[in-house]
Amino acid sequence: MSTRAESYLVGLIGDGVMPSLTPPMHERAAEVHGLRYLYRPIDLTELELPASGIGELLQAGAKLGFNAFNVTHPCKQLVLGHLDDISPTARAIGAVNTVVIQDGKFIGHNTDASGFSRGLAEGLPGARKKKVLQLGAGGAGAAVAYALLASGTEQLHIVDLDEDRVNHRVQELRKNFPQALVHAATPAQVPQLLGEVDGLLNATPIGMHHHPGLPLDIAALESRHWVADCIYRPVDTELIVAARNLGCQVLDGGYMAVGQAVDAFEIITGIRPETQQVRGHLLELLEKGL
Amino acid sequence: MSTRAESYLVGLIGDGVMPSLTPPMHERAAEVHGLRYLYRPIDLTELELPASGIGELLQAGAKLGFNAFNVTHPCKQLVLGHLDDISPTARAIGAVNTVVIQDGKFIGHNTDASGFSRGLAEGLPGARKKKVLQLGAGGAGAAVAYALLASGTEQLHIVDLDEDRVNHRVQELRKNFPQALVHAATPAQVPQLLGEVDGLLNATPIGMHHHPGLPLDIAALESRHWVADCIYRPVDTELIVAARNLGCQVLDGGYMAVGQAVDAFEIITGIRPETQQVRGHLLELLEKGL
Repeated sequence: MSTRAESYLVGLIGDGVMPSLTPPMHERAAEVHGLRYLYRPIDLTELELPASGIGELLQAGAKLGFNAFNVTHPCKQLVLGHLDDISPTARAIGAVNTVVIQDGKFIGHNTDASGFSRGLAEGLPGARKKKVLQLGAGGAGAAVAYALLASGTEQLHIVDLDEDRVNHRVQELRKNFPQALVHAATPAQVPQLLGEVDGLLNATPIGMHHHPGLPLDIAALESRHWVADCIYRPVDTELIVAARNLGCQVLDGGYMAVGQAVDAFEIITGIRPETQQVRGHLLELLEKGL
Repeated sequence: MSTRAESYLVGLIGDGVMPSLTPPMHERAAEVHGLRYLYRPIDLTELELPASGIGELLQAGAKLGFNAFNVTHPCKQLVLGHLDDISPTARAIGAVNTVVIQDGKFIGHNTDASGFSRGLAEGLPGARKKKVLQLGAGGAGAAVAYALLASGTEQLHIVDLDEDRVNHRVQELRKNFPQALVHAATPAQVPQLLGEVDGLLNATPIGMHHHPGLPLDIAALESRHWVADCIYRPVDTELIVAARNLGCQVLDGGYMAVGQAVDAFEIITGIRPETQQVRGHLLELLEKGL
């Protein structure tokens, strides 16, 4: 057939997705591989659509020739009700961030967890991860906690200001990882837990451009800890900068952003982009202030 | 902003549009100009949607980031009811084949007429067009008749087996071109009219791959006539071949196909592709049997 067999139309559905850097990351990776690839942000806020509009948008996308969608807040759970099939990992996490349309069927995947795992392996290759303290039990928290436990973490302490949310998250994780110790901790326990763990992971929004600050009191942080962040805007959060100054090994949020994009791109096209190329492009976009 | 400011998402809505060569023509022209451009055929037959589904598809396209649509049979008239604005030519013809989405508004254009005019000027530059015999008063016929009369044709005879259709068409054209002589002719009058006209234009489907044959008895065709066809599959219809063998100047349907595509591309992107490049590409695709 014509070049159309090698073309891909992808969308990102969620609230406030217009400034997302996932579209240009995908488009550049496709360019590198000679694929015709268009990636459109589809912003529920701008469209004045409720999160429940996800089903209608997926249906419309299938009619108009979309190959896939990424799905983000607030649709990652809601989308589950509109899928024909779902990957085991996405099912276990209870959230989908990638939907591929195959022969008119919607297949859900989760590349937040796999992307974080990949980033962890690339960015902190030798780091000990037996015991980890995680801040935040929301959407990103669910994916990274799953990724840690699937990568061999034996003790995971999760802190969240919302007690119900953290308790629910811990219960869900225990079902999937019955051998691990998964523990809902309180903010007051953070200093003591830091003394026990190998590394610290931030999955709260604290540190983002519009939500500056540190997500914890870093007095108990030591150079032996590794420190990871899920935030990539800025890529150098206050936490990452402070940890680097202390001599800690750090994993900035760019690794997770690149990991989820690279894994989604591979699911959509069958082609695995070079993560170094994609990370270089992401950092270039961030430097431009995009 | 990012590269997205230079990307275009376009669709073609109609029955049986999957094999259309308009998508690859647009995509190649965009490639030549370094634009990221994706053009999706959206086939009502495959989607099991009625022609009245055009409104819903336009709305969905606007939400999902489409920049424009081409519209073809059976939606060229139906689409009129879903537009916010319409170009004077499209309004006069009563049909729209190009819809641009600007700030959430749908603007209708017709590039069938302008594209045919352009093809006529390029492919038959010196030809006398005062008196023309046109076969076919359907959708394509409406556009090319308008183009001829707008290009200076003074006497236009239109033949169609459907008497109501040709009478209606002639009445509409007379409103727009009161100075011209527009005449509904019968098939029996063809030999006599051929003796009077400068050229012959086929706007019927006879000559297409799935509808082979000649649209008229060519006994009265002479080498002094020019002969034009709206059909581009095959580009050498039986009529074009017979006319060429008689020594007539000919204008194959590729000129109109390229003209409508080039004009639509310019409306969508503001960039005018080289018609010679686009025609070369079309002929290349046709040779490949696409």
